[in-house]
Order: sequence, then C-alpha cells, then structure tokens
Amino acid sequence: MSRDEAFLDAAQALGHSFDGEIKRGGNYLPLVRVGDTVYVSGQVPRVGDTVVVTGRAGLDVTLEQAQLAARICAMRALALLQRSLGSLEKVRAVPKVNVYVQCADGFAQQSEVADAASELLVAVLGPDGAHARTSVGVFQLPKNAAVELDLVAVAHAG
Amino acid sequence: MSRDEAFLDAAQALGHSFDGEIKRGGNYLPLVRVGDTVYVSGQVPRVGDTVVVTGRAGLDVTLEQAQLAARICAMRALALLQRSLGSLEKVRAVPKVNVYVQCADGFAQQSEVADAASELLVAVLGPDGAHARTSVGVFQLPKNAAVELDLVAVAHAG
Amino acid sequence: MSRDEAFLDAAQALGHSFDGEIKRGGNYLPLVRVGDTVYVSGQVPRVGDTVVVTGRAGLDVTLEQAQLAARICAMRALALLQRSLGSLEKVRAVPKVNVYVQCADGFAQQSEVADAASELLVAVLGPDGAHARTSVGVFQLPKNAAVELDLVAVAHAG
Repeated sequence: MSRDEAFLDAAQALGHSFDGEIKRGGNYLPLVRVGDTVYVSGQVPRVGDTVVVTGRAGLDVTLEQAQLAARICAMRALALLQRSLGSLEKVRAVPKVNVYVQCADGFAQQSEVADAASELLVAVLGPDGAHARTSVGVFQLPKNAAVELDLVAVAHAG
Repeated sequence: MSRDEAFLDAAQALGHSFDGEIKRGGNYLPLVRVGDTVYVSGQVPRVGDTVVVTGRAGLDVTLEQAQLAARICAMRALALLQRSLGSLEKVRAVPKVNVYVQCADGFAQQSEVADAASELLVAVLGPDGAHARTSVGVFQLPKNAAVELDLVAVAHAG
Repeated sequence: MSRDEAFLDAAQALGHSFDGEIKRGGNYLPLVRVGDTVYVSGQVPRVGDTVVVTGRAGLDVTLEQAQLAARICAMRALALLQRSLGSLEKVRAVPKVNVYVQCADGFAQQSEVADAASELLVAVLGPDGAHARTSVGVFQLPKNAAVELDLVAVAHAG
C-alpha cells in the first residue's frame, strides 16, 4: 500500500475527509520549504470550517477526544505535505513534531495525547515518519482548540 | 524602498527606536547561524531596558496592546538579523515563526495577536518574509511579557 | 579536559548518573538526525524511572529546584547526543534550545530557570554550546515535570 493510500485509509478510519481546503486561521502560510526542509504551521483539529475538538483536556475534553484531535492535526499536516510535494512518497523524514495540548490544571497526559499523532504519522509514512517530539500543556490555543501540532519535514531532493 | 528603509519606517510607525542594544534577559545568544540557517532567540517586547507590554491578553492587556507587543517582538528579531547579516536584504526566507501569548483563561485570539507580527514581517521583507507559523497561549512569560516571538530565518549564501 | 570528561564531571556535581537508559514517556524517538542536523526530543528531569523534580515553579518548586530540573534535562539531551554521535566532541553547534517551565500564576523567572541549562551546555561543550534560546512558562508538563527542554544540534560532518 502506498503512503497516499494509507493516508486515505486513515482519513476513512477517522470519519473525516481532508479533500477540501485546509483552512488556516491567520495571515501566514500553511508551510514553507527552504531547500529540502519543510516547516508546517501549527495545525488545530479543524475539518472544513469547524474546529471539531474544543475545550480543555482533563476538564471538558477526555483523553480519547484529545487523541482524536491530535490525529486530525496530524492528518492536516500530512494533507498539506501531500499537496505541496505531490505525494507523501516524497517525504524523506519528519525529524521533529511539537504537540501543544490545551489542558486543565493537573492534566499530565500530554505524551499520551501526542502518541496518537505519532502513531498516525508512522502508520502513514512508515519508519520515515518516526520523529523526535516535544509535547507540552498550554493554557489556551487558538479557536479554543484542544490540541495544536506543528512539524518539520524533510523532502527527497528534487 | 529597501528593506532597511522599510524597517526604519516600521520603527517610526511604532514610535520606538531599535537603534540601541537589543538586550536579552539571560545567558544565551541573541541568534546563532549555522550554514545559512539563523535561529533567533525568543524576543519579548522590550525597548531599551523596559518590557513595554506586560500582563495577560484578555485580562489586563487588550488585543490591540498584544498586537503592539507582537510587532515590537518582530522588530527586535529583524533588528538582530539586520545587525548580524549587515542588511535585511540578506534575508532569503523566514520559514518559521513561533508566537507565544501570555493570556487569560478563555482568550482564544492568539492568531489575531500573531497576525500583527506576521504582517510586519511581510511589510518589511516582502514575500520573502511570508512564513509558516505556530501561535499558542501560554501561562507565563519571562518578565511578565504579554508576547514572546522566535523565528528561524535563512540567509542568502555568502 | 575533553567534553566527555566535562560531562562526567557535571553528572557527578549533580549527584546523578546518566549511564542508564534515557527513558522516554511516549511513542517517539529520542532524537532524529537528518544530514548534520539533530533534533533532540523534549526532555523532562527524569533519572532512571523517576521524574525527580515535579510541581510548579513558584508554588511547590523553588527557583533552585527548577534550575536543578533544567540541568538534568540538559544532561539528558547531552547523554543522547553523546550516545548517538559517539562523543560530545562531534557536536559542532547547538543553535537552538527551548525551555518550558511548568509554573504558577505570577512566576516570571523562566529565563533564570533556563540559564541553568544554558550554562551547563556551555560548561560541557565550550563556546560551541552557546545557543539561541526561547523560554516560556506553560500550564502543565508531561508527568507533572517542572521543566522540559528540547534542542537542535548540528554534528560535525561524517
């Protein structure tokens, strides 16, 4: 199975389509490539016009809902890479992923939330999707999103 | 108009001069260049010795004040690039900008704060200043600053 | 004194050994190298199985305890680089360090916490350890850690 097929399978498993425009909430670019390095902007779990998981992990968002949010963020990042590079086969590496979790006082499962995104990246990209990662719990995220994720990818030359 | 002239115009519009020392609040370097990649340290809205916008967005800092803070952070980053590279004409790209907003519970306009910095970068650098971005709302920033901004730039070779 | 000797000295001064496995708390890699750039994952102050400094700076964690946490995070990052590269002599630069401090409302000494990590990096690596830095105060960290630190390093070619 190609990575682009694996991406479609993952979208189907999530019950969301990432075919439409990947909207962003401000005046910046979805990603920028310099040389072979691609910086992908922070993604919130927006599908179409709607941020589908809002609130605080540990308060009004369960661990499972936060993990869903993390998966949607990762899918958006993959969708942006796919469109920019033509195919996910062009991704050589994803050296760094950052996961920000909007959370309640006392919520310490940021890693467990981020694992959902990490596992999705490896499921779609294979070993090239394995990455270094930082996950932290922040006080507020844009649009009251439960999770935000950004990443650095490296494209195959050419 | 050159980028260095655009920088001066932006400083005048803000009513602040960035001619003096760009002070930092700890034991680190303002920026580090490796190859053509330049990592600029997190900037708070300090002019001279004073952090000019302190407090929490959504509590004692308005959206407009936070946007001013974001612009000052961006100007400091540009001032550091200008001094290090000799001229802002040497900036090839600004692939990634991170904006941290010290905010109150319920404040969800991090993107709107960050837009002020993003628009300033493009106003000074033109299309080369367009960037990927992550903005998050954090609980506390150094010196009680309302906003902190860091970025990755790429210099023209040589 | 070689950097690897300086690392051992620093470990002894801290009273902790970093000889064992550098455990991580999720499904990701400790570091990823692409070309000469090495991205090190977010490190919490874990020694063996135990996160040794937990809580909030400014509430139940003193500045001194948070600085100890920052040093342990930095030592873990160095230990990972040492094992991956064979020796800390192979580190060409550490262009960027990010420090996240789990803190109480009103705690504004994130830079002072991060300085402890910055000074340790320079003590072990010499001038090549000097870096750009961002430090922010976050609401929660994985495992209730008081501090988390990640960094970008650059290895000597080959």
